[in-house]
Amino acid sequence: MPKLKNKAISHQVIKRLPRYYSQLGFLLESGVLRVSSMELAKQMNLTASQIRQDLNHFGCFGQQGYGYSVELLREEISKILGLGRNYHLIVIGAGNLGQALANYKNFDTMGFSIKAIFDTSPEICGNKVGSCIVNHINELENYCSNNTVDIAVLALKSKNCQEIANRLIALDIKAIWNFASFDFRAPHGISVEDVHLSDSLMMLSYSLNNNHD
Amino acid sequence: MPKLKNKAISHQVIKRLPRYYSQLGFLLESGVLRVSSMELAKQMNLTASQIRQDLNHFGCFGQQGYGYSVELLREEISKILGLGRNYHLIVIGAGNLGQALANYKNFDTMGFSIKAIFDTSPEICGNKVGSCIVNHINELENYCSNNTVDIAVLALKSKNCQEIANRLIALDIKAIWNFASFDFRAPHGISVEDVHLSDSLMMLSYSLNNNHD
Repeated sequence: MPKLKNKAISHQVIKRLPRYYSQLGFLLESGVLRVSSMELAKQMNLTASQIRQDLNHFGCFGQQGYGYSVELLREEISKILGLGRNYHLIVIGAGNLGQALANYKNFDTMGFSIKAIFDTSPEICGNKVGSCIVNHINELENYCSNNTVDIAVLALKSKNCQEIANRLIALDIKAIWNFASFDFRAPHGISVEDVHLSDSLMMLSYSLNNNHD
Repeated sequence: MPKLKNKAISHQVIKRLPRYYSQLGFLLESGVLRVSSMELAKQMNLTASQIRQDLNHFGCFGQQGYGYSVELLREEISKILGLGRNYHLIVIGAGNLGQALANYKNFDTMGFSIKAIFDTSPEICGNKVGSCIVNHINELENYCSNNTVDIAVLALKSKNCQEIANRLIALDIKAIWNFASFDFRAPHGISVEDVHLSDSLMMLSYSLNNNHD
């Protein structure tokens, strides 16, 4: 496989990779062995040339007239996305959302395992959530010096997210999955993915009240 | 308040409204009564003039030298977002994700109440999830003809999302909150908000493997 030149690849292209990965997974489950860029484009609301361009970036070339091998292309994209290894996650916040995330089993099957969960509330600390016992947030530094942490999940409502994020960054955690309705500042080199659930609900209520065409 | 001219307002402006709403909520909780566009800009990583422009679209004018009343501005944005009334939600899919969503209490406090949940699996149908009994998906049409449904939540893994979406659209449901890793086609007038949780996890694993600067 040709060496990836990721520096030159736009964020928009990279953002489509998980979509390819999922779609190819569906095809594989359905027993489809080969797919053309034309067919894939139709299934994914993209254009065939966009798909060919996207995949060419990563050296994934289909065979003219034969299309792509679904299994090989999925494997290639899986490698590019860094899947196929195990990531250790910690969850900050053991409220409703933190508990729901810790109990959700699908992340584990993808290789993202929640290893510890932290909260400030004395009533919650010590409880079992998913397969973890809730630790007090004061234990965060101690835990992180003795364990590998790849991704921290922020499942807090509170406005002290920035302070918590600063502590995580000081602990050399490079990836933050942010469920808090709060956009914090992260220095260059720290990846943040925001999932603002209530924001998307509010966008739907907005549309319901304003889509009159 | 001046009549809203929503047609002219860009999606980017509207997408910032939930962020304003959340930030003003934090300020209110902290006992802050007034805020200038400058202060708000600093807190939200925006510019003061962007904030003034955004809010002017909706007729929310701050007072020169006094800034905005936190409470009034939040109320105004709440109205624009269509909050302050109750929305009825149904969840399609009672797997791990559907269960987590149905058990998550915060949506209810925002006025988004899950009223019913549907699944295809005979083992799951009849079980209690959150405050709902899981119905068979065959009951969908019957349920929707006898109950108001504002928003359908797609919490399916399967590739028959498009078929389910078509059924929801035929039932005149105008808003879909899509958690399936599948982008389906919806006609004009149907609002879809995608929350692809595993996509954002994959973006983090990608970054962990490719952020070497």
